[in-house]
Amino acid sequence: MSSQPESPGITAKKGENFSEWYTQVVLKAGLADYAPVKGFIVLRPYGYAIWESIRDILDRRFKETGHQNGFLPVLIPESLLGREKDHFAGFIPEVFWVTKAGDNDIGERLALRPTSETLAYSIFAKWITSYRDLPLKINYWNSALRAEIKATKPFIRTSEFLWQEGHTVHASEAEAEQEVALILDIYRELIEEHIAVPTVRGFKSDKEKFVGAKYTTTLEGMMSDGKALQMGTSHHLAQNFSKPFEIKYLGKDTQEHLAWQTSWGVSWRLIGALIMVHGDDKGLILPPRLAPIQVIIVPIFRDKDAQVVIENARNLESELRQQGIRAHLDARSEYTSGWKFNEWELKGVPLRINIGPRDIEKGTVELARRDTREKSPCGRKLVVETAKEMLDKIQINLYEKARTLLQDKTARPHDYAEFKSLMEGKGGFASAGWCGRLECEEKIKEETGADIRVIPFDQAEKPEACILCGKPSEKVAMFARAY
Amino acid sequence: MSSQPESPGITAKKGENFSEWYTQVVLKAGLADYAPVKGFIVLRPYGYAIWESIRDILDRRFKETGHQNGFLPVLIPESLLGREKDHFAGFIPEVFWVTKAGDNDIGERLALRPTSETLAYSIFAKWITSYRDLPLKINYWNSALRAEIKATKPFIRTSEFLWQEGHTVHASEAEAEQEVALILDIYRELIEEHIAVPTVRGFKSDKEKFVGAKYTTTLEGMMSDGKALQMGTSHHLAQNFSKPFEIKYLGKDTQEHLAWQTSWGVSWRLIGALIMVHGDDKGLILPPRLAPIQVIIVPIFRDKDAQVVIENARNLESELRQQGIRAHLDARSEYTSGWKFNEWELKGVPLRINIGPRDIEKGTVELARRDTREKSPCGRKLVVETAKEMLDKIQINLYEKARTLLQDKTARPHDYAEFKSLMEGKGGFASAGWCGRLECEEKIKEETGADIRVIPFDQAEKPEACILCGKPSEKVAMFARAY
Repeated sequence: MSSQPESPGITAKKGENFSEWYTQVVLKAGLADYAPVKGFIVLRPYGYAIWESIRDILDRRFKETGHQNGFLPVLIPESLLGREKDHFAGFIPEVFWVTKAGDNDIGERLALRPTSETLAYSIFAKWITSYRDLPLKINYWNSALRAEIKATKPFIRTSEFLWQEGHTVHASEAEAEQEVALILDIYRELIEEHIAVPTVRGFKSDKEKFVGAKYTTTLEGMMSDGKALQMGTSHHLAQNFSKPFEIKYLGKDTQEHLAWQTSWGVSWRLIGALIMVHGDDKGLILPPRLAPIQVIIVPIFRDKDAQVVIENARNLESELRQQGIRAHLDARSEYTSGWKFNEWELKGVPLRINIGPRDIEKGTVELARRDTREKSPCGRKLVVETAKEMLDKIQINLYEKARTLLQDKTARPHDYAEFKSLMEGKGGFASAGWCGRLECEEKIKEETGADIRVIPFDQAEKPEACILCGKPSEKVAMFARAY
Repeated sequence: MSSQPESPGITAKKGENFSEWYTQVVLKAGLADYAPVKGFIVLRPYGYAIWESIRDILDRRFKETGHQNGFLPVLIPESLLGREKDHFAGFIPEVFWVTKAGDNDIGERLALRPTSETLAYSIFAKWITSYRDLPLKINYWNSALRAEIKATKPFIRTSEFLWQEGHTVHASEAEAEQEVALILDIYRELIEEHIAVPTVRGFKSDKEKFVGAKYTTTLEGMMSDGKALQMGTSHHLAQNFSKPFEIKYLGKDTQEHLAWQTSWGVSWRLIGALIMVHGDDKGLILPPRLAPIQVIIVPIFRDKDAQVVIENARNLESELRQQGIRAHLDARSEYTSGWKFNEWELKGVPLRINIGPRDIEKGTVELARRDTREKSPCGRKLVVETAKEMLDKIQINLYEKARTLLQDKTARPHDYAEFKSLMEGKGGFASAGWCGRLECEEKIKEETGADIRVIPFDQAEKPEACILCGKPSEKVAMFARAY
């Protein structure tokens, strides 16, 4: 076994060099790699399998709630992109432009989709004529392209990213607003119950909302380094797009009405979030409900035991699979079991089962939890049941740890000096009063690097004076430096 | 009900104006629509649902046979695209180029992926160092972009199309060749057993093979208008790409070796094929195994019966679903049942169940087959079982009809005059000897519009003299005009 490659372990510490640690996890756990064009990444199969888990969970919920999928081309004519002015101005600095096809200049420049509102709505306008055509609720699984000028980071900030974008059209504003809330709750369910990351939910400020929206609702998460991450957004577009795109319908009242709209999306950023929140110095830790492999079985054998041990391990794999557990047997003979332990820890598989000749004699196996790294023996007949229980416990434990992180990194500074030193120090969310004026929001950003991440729906705390200017505040906002 | 919109029926006849008929089916059955940029289409939910069926069938088979999915960006640097010369020359006339990001010129031009061999292999070269890393078998579900100069046609020829592209790397040529054959068989299974279209399988000629491949294997189908359609291809790349991209591995023999490669793909063209082959003057006819909705239940009621009939119909829907049948109840009150019959026929749902108050009294329903348009009564308790049987029969019937079409449109012309008049007349496949020379292949194309579509694996017929030059022929080729 001397010729086997070195185990590709993480050499950076999460607590010491967070950014380097993150990059190593992404690359060494086999999630993604850099593409030849700067700012772009490719997904390796393990990374893509996590995206498939996320996609399948959301796709099922979208369909259960009456949404359908569609396809839109990646190219949008410049004139169409410009039809809603704020929207255009917001995206124009980061648009990739196609100007040639083969050797020929094309007429009008074509934008690579930064988001599809304009393209979708120019077409929806043709499809919708009557109240009978409403609501229209379509989701698109695709990628969006935004030329990133800032430093890029796999999953968190890349010039092309996988996402879903939903677009709906409704007959009334109330129905559109219900949709905005429904989707935010579907996102919450995905992020909290599957990805095991708690969120703060609420509104974006006008400065931070989606360009073209009446308002944006958001889910914000807190990463281990004290920076916030926007996990998903759901926008109420009101009639801001239906006016320029003339999305009108004939009502039951035989009158023509402008329609009401929403749009919403989450991206592979969620993979970045789960790496940052759950990972440790050994690598990735995947929440069981999302993990492509929930249980890895590592047979421990010498040549003379190989057949018996592998056969036994294969039976175990099939028992687990029959019970709906995503189990995988690593029967490769060209790697030692020690090498495999390291690799599957690096890849964050929640539970490992070690099985060797002595275990078989004794009728036991060894279970090793990835999150706590505890090992425990288990009777062979109880493995399936115990594995199920343990996966549930790991899921809960990861969420609880993430909740503790969020609590530890949420503070209520009493004055602006404390606010500033917080942002310069351990970071996290500062929950503080805000007068509602752009002036203060911009000055705080300039002086501390902190944005208003979210104005929570849950305003349990009594609104105070604005943390900067001291004027009366109607709402408490959560400020943070962010990705 | 006088205000309900007119039923959007097909006005062209399949036998009279095939091209117009096809376009009407695509648009009126709600499969796709034109995008604002010429040559591009959007998929509406019903069209996308058919693509999802195709994708799910293939994805399951790919995974069962050891393939995994990944993601590649849509942008490829020009230098990378040019590294394999034949490949580059083949694609360059139809490449869309990005030359700007925001207001800035970018350095090197970026191609929108016409296919991903070059990008994938520049990265695979980093991932593969040892025999332990092989085989590498990755599939990508994405879209490809090729600026179409010829007349475009939804699903058949568009400047962006949905597809999957598989890319594999192997330690030996034999293993690569087995992969090429395995994939072609997975495609055959999809196309014949699910899409219900028979195919002729074999090799492409050197002129028609994938640019950069050693050889291309193909599945060719015959459309109702006598034109052939390439349904899927699987390429043996040999070491043509591993050389320029330096995909090398250290073998068990501790020597360095060049790897062997394959690539393969099918696109949403398959949707075009099923429309053309199975459709009729009433619209689409979907093979049951692929249909997003297999059984549509139309309740027939007046106001006073509405509740009873709908409740009964809903029970039926849930019984069918419990048995794994994709059933849908059309309970909309704003359309008449006659309107619904037309719409679901247009959309090609294989089986319709009509249920009215008199049926409920008698304990029966009415079944209406889409393919034969036969109606038959059925006892309420036997519905699930009968529907299952009928769906199987429809699947078989569609395949048998398509097989008859293929047989009717395959001829063996005795001489070149007969060959020519065949191509100018009813079209179809001409099975004929070919000397193997490019010269004859090109002259036949020029004079008759017919390509060599496929040199069948199954050379049951005795090879004859070349249909054009009369020189000895080793193989029989299938010629046809094609999409």
